[in-house]
Amino acid sequence: MAYLAKDLGIIYEFNKENQPTKVVDSGTTLTIETFDCFTDQIQSEDDVMSEIDWNQVNPATGPVFVEGAQPGDILKVKIEKIEIGDQGVMAVVPGLGLMGDQIEKTEAKIMPIKDEKVIFNGVEAPLTKMVGVIGVAPEGDGINCGTPGAHGGNMDNTMVKEGASLYFPVAVEGALFALGDLHAAMGDGEVSGSGVEVAGQVTVSLDIIKGEKIIQPILENEEVFSQIASGKTFDEAANLASLLLIERIAQKSGLPTTEVTMFMSMLAQLEVCQVVNPLKTARLSVPKWLLENIGVSLIEK
Amino acid sequence: MAYLAKDLGIIYEFNKENQPTKVVDSGTTLTIETFDCFTDQIQSEDDVMSEIDWNQVNPATGPVFVEGAQPGDILKVKIEKIEIGDQGVMAVVPGLGLMGDQIEKTEAKIMPIKDEKVIFNGVEAPLTKMVGVIGVAPEGDGINCGTPGAHGGNMDNTMVKEGASLYFPVAVEGALFALGDLHAAMGDGEVSGSGVEVAGQVTVSLDIIKGEKIIQPILENEEVFSQIASGKTFDEAANLASLLLIERIAQKSGLPTTEVTMFMSMLAQLEVCQVVNPLKTARLSVPKWLLENIGVSLIEK
Repeated sequence: MAYLAKDLGIIYEFNKENQPTKVVDSGTTLTIETFDCFTDQIQSEDDVMSEIDWNQVNPATGPVFVEGAQPGDILKVKIEKIEIGDQGVMAVVPGLGLMGDQIEKTEAKIMPIKDEKVIFNGVEAPLTKMVGVIGVAPEGDGINCGTPGAHGGNMDNTMVKEGASLYFPVAVEGALFALGDLHAAMGDGEVSGSGVEVAGQVTVSLDIIKGEKIIQPILENEEVFSQIASGKTFDEAANLASLLLIERIAQKSGLPTTEVTMFMSMLAQLEVCQVVNPLKTARLSVPKWLLENIGVSLIEK
Repeated sequence: MAYLAKDLGIIYEFNKENQPTKVVDSGTTLTIETFDCFTDQIQSEDDVMSEIDWNQVNPATGPVFVEGAQPGDILKVKIEKIEIGDQGVMAVVPGLGLMGDQIEKTEAKIMPIKDEKVIFNGVEAPLTKMVGVIGVAPEGDGINCGTPGAHGGNMDNTMVKEGASLYFPVAVEGALFALGDLHAAMGDGEVSGSGVEVAGQVTVSLDIIKGEKIIQPILENEEVFSQIASGKTFDEAANLASLLLIERIAQKSGLPTTEVTMFMSMLAQLEVCQVVNPLKTARLSVPKWLLENIGVSLIEK
C-alpha cells in the first residue's frame, strides 16, 4: 500500500505553489503519516508553552498530486482508517476559543491514550478519533492551515472519522491534497480551541469524480449527506450551508425550493463543526433515506 | 389529573403582569392544552396566508401560578407526555429563516399525521415531537412569545421532548409558567423558521427547587445536562452557554477553569437549537457520566 511519511514534507498553508511530496493515480489507497497540531513540539508538561513556535502549528502532510485531477472536478477522499499515538496533548491559550478571555496563561496537559481511552485527571474518556485539517489547494492565494474554507482546511468536523467520505471542489491541477491535525477526542464546537491533539497516520482512498461541481466540501457517511460551509460567523456559515444544500437538492429533484426548504426544516440537522477558528464552520446533514425517497443522488458516483 | 384548557387563556408575551389561568402546588402533574403556533388559523392550504393575523402567533397556554415559587428559585418542568393532533402545518415566509431571502411569497402546506408519521409529498417521516415555546415570566418588561431568552420562551430546542426536564430561573412570584408551539417534527436549526406546527397537549410535572440559582435554562435527560443560552447571534449564544456551564462545573467541582474547559472541549457537544428567531439559541451538552466521575451534581435535587 502507498505510504507518505511526514518527513517528506509538510505544509502550513494550502497553496497552489506547494511542490507535491507524492504523486498518485485516482483510485489509490494511501497511508499518510501526520504530526500533531503543534508539530510534536510539546512532549511533556514541562515543555514551556511560551517557547512554542506558533508559526509551526496545524501542519498538514503533503501535498499529494492526484494525476488527472482538473479544476472543476471533485476529489473524493474516503477515510479508511485513523491510527494515533499513545499520548495526546491539550492546550488552553489566552484569547483562543470560547473561554479565551478567561484564560490567563497558556497551559498544556499531556493525556495518555491506552485501551481505546484518553486519560485526563483520572477520567477515562472514549476515543472519538477524527481529522481536523484536510483539504486541497485553493485557486487564488494560499490559505493558512489554521483556517477552514471552500477548500476544506481546518474544519475541525467531528464527522471526519473512519468510514466517512469527503468531497472537495478541485481548484488546481492535481488537487494538491493534504491532511493533519488528528484529534483523539473532541466535542462538536471544539470549545477551548484544542482537541486532544495527537500524531498518527490516516489511510485514505482518493478518487476523482468528473462532470459534477460542488462549491464547498460535502461529507457522506452511512446515514447522511452533510453540506459543510465556513464563514466569518457561525450564522453566516449556517446560511451558506443551507443555501448550497437546498439549491442542490431542488435542482436535482425538480421540487420547488419552498418544498425542499420545508423538508430540510423538518428533517435536516444544522450542526456545529467549530466556532473557534478564524472562520467558523457549520454543517447541515440530511438523512439519506429522505434523498432516496425524493430520487436525489447528491453526488453522482 | 389537573388539566388546563387552552380556552381558559393564552399569552403572546411572557409578562409578570399576566393573570394566571391556573394555580397549582409544587409537585403537581398538569396536562396543558395548546394551539399550534398560528393559533389554529390555518386549517387548509386554501386559507390565504396573507389574511393570517401575525399578532396571533406563538401562543402559550397559561400562565400557571406555582404556589411558593419565589424569585431566585428554580422551576423544574418534566415533560411527561406530548400528544398531538392529526394534522400539522408548515410555512415558508419571505424574510423568515435561513432561506428567507429566497422565498417570494408565504406558502403553507398541510401535513397529515398518521401512525406516528408525518406525511409530506408522499414521504412518511418519523415524528420527533417537541415543545417550541416554554418558559416563565421575566423580571422586567414582557418578552414576546416568538423570542427566547433567560426565561425560556421560543427556544425551539429539539431536546425539549418526552422524558426531558427543564430548569428555569424563577424571576417573579409564582413563576407564571406557560407553554405552546408544539412541533410534530423539526430538525436542529429549524432552517425554514417553521417546524411541523401542530396543536395538542403536554403533560408536565412542576416542582420548585430552592437554595440554588441558575442564569439561563438548563435541560436534563437520561444522558446529558445541557446548558441553554440565547443571544443576538449564534456565536454570542454559544459563548454564553460555554461560560455558564464551565463556570458552574468549575465552582461545583473545585477544578480549575482551565481543566474544566479542556474536559468540555473534549467531551461536551455544542449544538444548535435554532438560528431563525429574533435571538438565536445554543446548547452545550455534557455527558452525565463525566459529571459523576468528577463528583458534580449540576442541580442539587
